[in-house]
Amino acid sequence: MLKNQSPVRYCRFMVDGRAYSGQIRDKSIDIVEGGPFTKTSLMRLSYQMNRVKFLPPFMPKQLWCIGYNYKEHAEELKSEIPKEPVVFIKATSSIIGSDDFIRIPDWAGAIHYEGELAVVIGKSGRNISEEDALDHVLGYTIMNDVTARELQVADGQWARSKSFDTFAPFGPAILFKKEMPEDSVIETRVNGKVKQRATLSQMIFPVKTLISYISRFATLEQGDVIATGTPSGIGPIKVGDIVEVEIDGIGKLKNVCAE
Amino acid sequence: MLKNQSPVRYCRFMVDGRAYSGQIRDKSIDIVEGGPFTKTSLMRLSYQMNRVKFLPPFMPKQLWCIGYNYKEHAEELKSEIPKEPVVFIKATSSIIGSDDFIRIPDWAGAIHYEGELAVVIGKSGRNISEEDALDHVLGYTIMNDVTARELQVADGQWARSKSFDTFAPFGPAILFKKEMPEDSVIETRVNGKVKQRATLSQMIFPVKTLISYISRFATLEQGDVIATGTPSGIGPIKVGDIVEVEIDGIGKLKNVCAE
Repeated sequence: MLKNQSPVRYCRFMVDGRAYSGQIRDKSIDIVEGGPFTKTSLMRLSYQMNRVKFLPPFMPKQLWCIGYNYKEHAEELKSEIPKEPVVFIKATSSIIGSDDFIRIPDWAGAIHYEGELAVVIGKSGRNISEEDALDHVLGYTIMNDVTARELQVADGQWARSKSFDTFAPFGPAILFKKEMPEDSVIETRVNGKVKQRATLSQMIFPVKTLISYISRFATLEQGDVIATGTPSGIGPIKVGDIVEVEIDGIGKLKNVCAE
Repeated sequence: MLKNQSPVRYCRFMVDGRAYSGQIRDKSIDIVEGGPFTKTSLMRLSYQMNRVKFLPPFMPKQLWCIGYNYKEHAEELKSEIPKEPVVFIKATSSIIGSDDFIRIPDWAGAIHYEGELAVVIGKSGRNISEEDALDHVLGYTIMNDVTARELQVADGQWARSKSFDTFAPFGPAILFKKEMPEDSVIETRVNGKVKQRATLSQMIFPVKTLISYISRFATLEQGDVIATGTPSGIGPIKVGDIVEVEIDGIGKLKNVCAE
């Protein structure tokens, strides 16, 4: 007999031309009915993970992002260590899934990867205290905050350089918060070579502070995402490169760069 | 006999606790079925305009905004005249309708009005030429790009200072593009006193250039909005002030400031 249960790692994927919701268990994915913000029921059907193409686990309503949230990254960009979180917004039209292509424009100068933990808001709120902040978290996933570095510097405002179509690989799955390890490692690799490696506890402003800070001015809504900033080790990617961002417990967000 | 027709000025409004779509004709609003992006049918029911409370005419998917797009405004902020459009994004959670309150935070320093023409994208597109740009416009409405001026300067990135809840009054109605006057006046008044007054032709980068520019990096989607920047004459608003932004042909976006 099947019983209703919450999935541990929720994902969306395509197989044989159809889209499904699923629950990842080892190397296979069990199909579920329901979305990340609702109760789900387990179906009696599963696929091997290597047969599917991941989709974004859902489409965020608002993609809040944080800059300079790791000390050594602020230093490598010759920026001061911020006294308050640096908040910016990426256009949701830039979101793609794991396994989708990052399209490298031929006119925008250097394009950089930025591996990041992404927080999924599960419960809306305003003026949330740090103490209550994690009550508003559904779980965690990964974002690659792809950036046209030279345009970022030239523009001043970061909206354009970070909102090119395909510049927000997102996924592959949501790890529900009760399953999140105490302190995960985040690692970004290009063509298998480690480029960024840090623990999430190295963030200058932890998740609870970011949630509280944003909610002081804006209502955080169910389905919003906060990308929490990238560690040091940023660098360029070019057509043909394979970029992987991996976080313990969440999984691996993998994208190939194409024209 | 009723016949199907496109509304000239489309709006959404509340009356007696219910939400309706409508077509504004002189001082009255005829109820229609259908949204701004679909065919609408006229119903045989209308309300006097002074009896209704306007809602945002629709909820934008993405709120693209432009900074420093009038020469004298760039000068009053001691900024250079930009060589390319300055693009930023406002959180859609900050959107309110005409007649809603702008909530003035008591901890964020000076809060300024910024009256602006808002372009409603009706047809999605990428890499749109200036020649084709207006084919992608459904029509025009008004946005007040309310800004916490001191935070804007202190933060560097503008996302926080411009994305407080209620900081994006939007509406009251969409004027379909074929009805748009050749060159409208935009005027912002506080408590009846004129604070900003310009013609839309004074924009440094006209609408067709803004559409083409954004679409070079991001797909513009049906339901996106581009707020085109504010003229000179910005200034503070405080609790109790009445702010009106009016554009010839489109109407008047009116909001009261409250705690």
